[in-house]
Amino acid sequence: MNFKITGTGIYLPPYIETSKETATFINKSEEWIASKTGVTERRKSDIDVDKMGAIAAKQAMEGNTKPDLIINASGVPKQTIPDTSVFFQKELGLNNIPCFSIHGTCLSFLIALNNAAALINSNVYKRILIISSDRGTIGRNPENPESAALLGDGAAAILIEAEESKFNNFHYWKMNTWSDGANLTEVRGGGTALHPQNPSTKPEDNLFSMDGPSIYKIARKKAYKMVSETFKNVEFDKTDVSWVIPHQASEKAVTAYHEYGGFEENKIINIVAKTGNCVAASMPMALVTAVQDGRIMRGDLLYFIGTGAGLSMACALIRF
Amino acid sequence: MNFKITGTGIYLPPYIETSKETATFINKSEEWIASKTGVTERRKSDIDVDKMGAIAAKQAMEGNTKPDLIINASGVPKQTIPDTSVFFQKELGLNNIPCFSIHGTCLSFLIALNNAAALINSNVYKRILIISSDRGTIGRNPENPESAALLGDGAAAILIEAEESKFNNFHYWKMNTWSDGANLTEVRGGGTALHPQNPSTKPEDNLFSMDGPSIYKIARKKAYKMVSETFKNVEFDKTDVSWVIPHQASEKAVTAYHEYGGFEENKIINIVAKTGNCVAASMPMALVTAVQDGRIMRGDLLYFIGTGAGLSMACALIRF
Repeated sequence: MNFKITGTGIYLPPYIETSKETATFINKSEEWIASKTGVTERRKSDIDVDKMGAIAAKQAMEGNTKPDLIINASGVPKQTIPDTSVFFQKELGLNNIPCFSIHGTCLSFLIALNNAAALINSNVYKRILIISSDRGTIGRNPENPESAALLGDGAAAILIEAEESKFNNFHYWKMNTWSDGANLTEVRGGGTALHPQNPSTKPEDNLFSMDGPSIYKIARKKAYKMVSETFKNVEFDKTDVSWVIPHQASEKAVTAYHEYGGFEENKIINIVAKTGNCVAASMPMALVTAVQDGRIMRGDLLYFIGTGAGLSMACALIRF
Repeated sequence: MNFKITGTGIYLPPYIETSKETATFINKSEEWIASKTGVTERRKSDIDVDKMGAIAAKQAMEGNTKPDLIINASGVPKQTIPDTSVFFQKELGLNNIPCFSIHGTCLSFLIALNNAAALINSNVYKRILIISSDRGTIGRNPENPESAALLGDGAAAILIEAEESKFNNFHYWKMNTWSDGANLTEVRGGGTALHPQNPSTKPEDNLFSMDGPSIYKIARKKAYKMVSETFKNVEFDKTDVSWVIPHQASEKAVTAYHEYGGFEENKIINIVAKTGNCVAASMPMALVTAVQDGRIMRGDLLYFIGTGAGLSMACALIRF
């Protein structure tokens, strides 16, 4: 599969919520937050996900022709119906462009990138805008202090286009979902099971619940296996990877790719301390940050990897 | 793009809600329901979308090897996180299979089919299970009587597999979204905009609102244009189409493909009177019904077409 990332955009809400403020909200100390999550500050948005995503998307589209498909790849929607892609289109002042959503929680961006590459490869679309925008702070539950300390708001977008050359830049893709871990990360409300109108829906059902330590324990082994398998299946070694772009689940989850994954620490894009876990937006935010600050350069070999509620895990090896 | 539908499954909840019962709920007459929607009965499920979809999926998988990807292609999720595909996997007693959701409201199935075909065509996956399961009766608002009279519950699933031959069976795909119609069909709640916990979220925000007459007026013209364009772009004529499989939006919306679309009435799969509008499940339910009752046969040319909240419209011409 062959495509080129021709545009990148990011939106960081201007309001910075320091861990001092978060600590009051969750009734813990700043030190507790630092030790459990590694997050020192996160952004808190006062505009909704559609507006956040549209700002990132405008930046990604600057100087480019308008897309022939818009994919929303976020973790939590603006509303139940229509899906958020429609509201991105509206906020962008566009009309008459097909759009839909891909949802795989924190892996939505990576899954969307894989689908978009397949659509381009199959000549269905030529220029696809992928937008991830999440406002996790809305769903924080102070009674679940670790996830509440982790979550932040942010958005990122990329434009990918068909590449004339026959050079294949999507070298490897692997995803897995172990549904026996379905209850490890949840927002149980918002759908048919515990509908907002259902009298048995409790307030906490509408907020994030996450068993971070259990996920980390399971995911570390699975990630280790996924990394090993990747480099058994491709013509590259780990040392050929220019940049590892992990989902920014927590400081521990990000640095594990160095400590246990065998990648050099300075090759891992790590933004979690300053942005928190921005659900599906975290991975593209890490990508776009490192593209825009000049670390990631054309031709670099990028290794995306992360976990998502499900429990899911996915990785992709892509030539930028 | 080349694939074969190798399995089909459907789940019709056993409880039949006649229009007599619906009439009481929405404070209208049976005649009013008949004239506005053409629906005489709809199913009402007492099990949730994951269980409904899993029953349909089991049927689709019977005698087949297990899928290497599961896509949830429903209109409304079971819960906010994780996405419903995970719960389908769990209900199917499977584990260790990648899964995610594609959401384009009533067009989710058709969009998922197009994505799945591209993934198979790009050798990413070989055997994809697509499940659509919707429980629209949960979100009915008696103050919006037309949509409340239309909505029903149901699920359908198909298994698609890579086809050895190089024969291309996906002849045409077209989708469009006009976000100026974003507010014509909505469930405004359930996300970040009008979060269940937000004190300004009103009960009706969590229920379906649909401006049926406006949608019909706009969609009729757009559908007419989409049909015309399809047959300008393919090597087939309208008369070559074996079966038209429309989204079962309403009796009027289905029969319009005969009255204005130029297709013979007896070639249009029409199940809306007995199932109502089952959101994303409607289109695959129509397909599976006609496959299982022997109308659709191997080699038939199928024309899928429909509208979805967005306002979106899509069509696909596929050799079965």
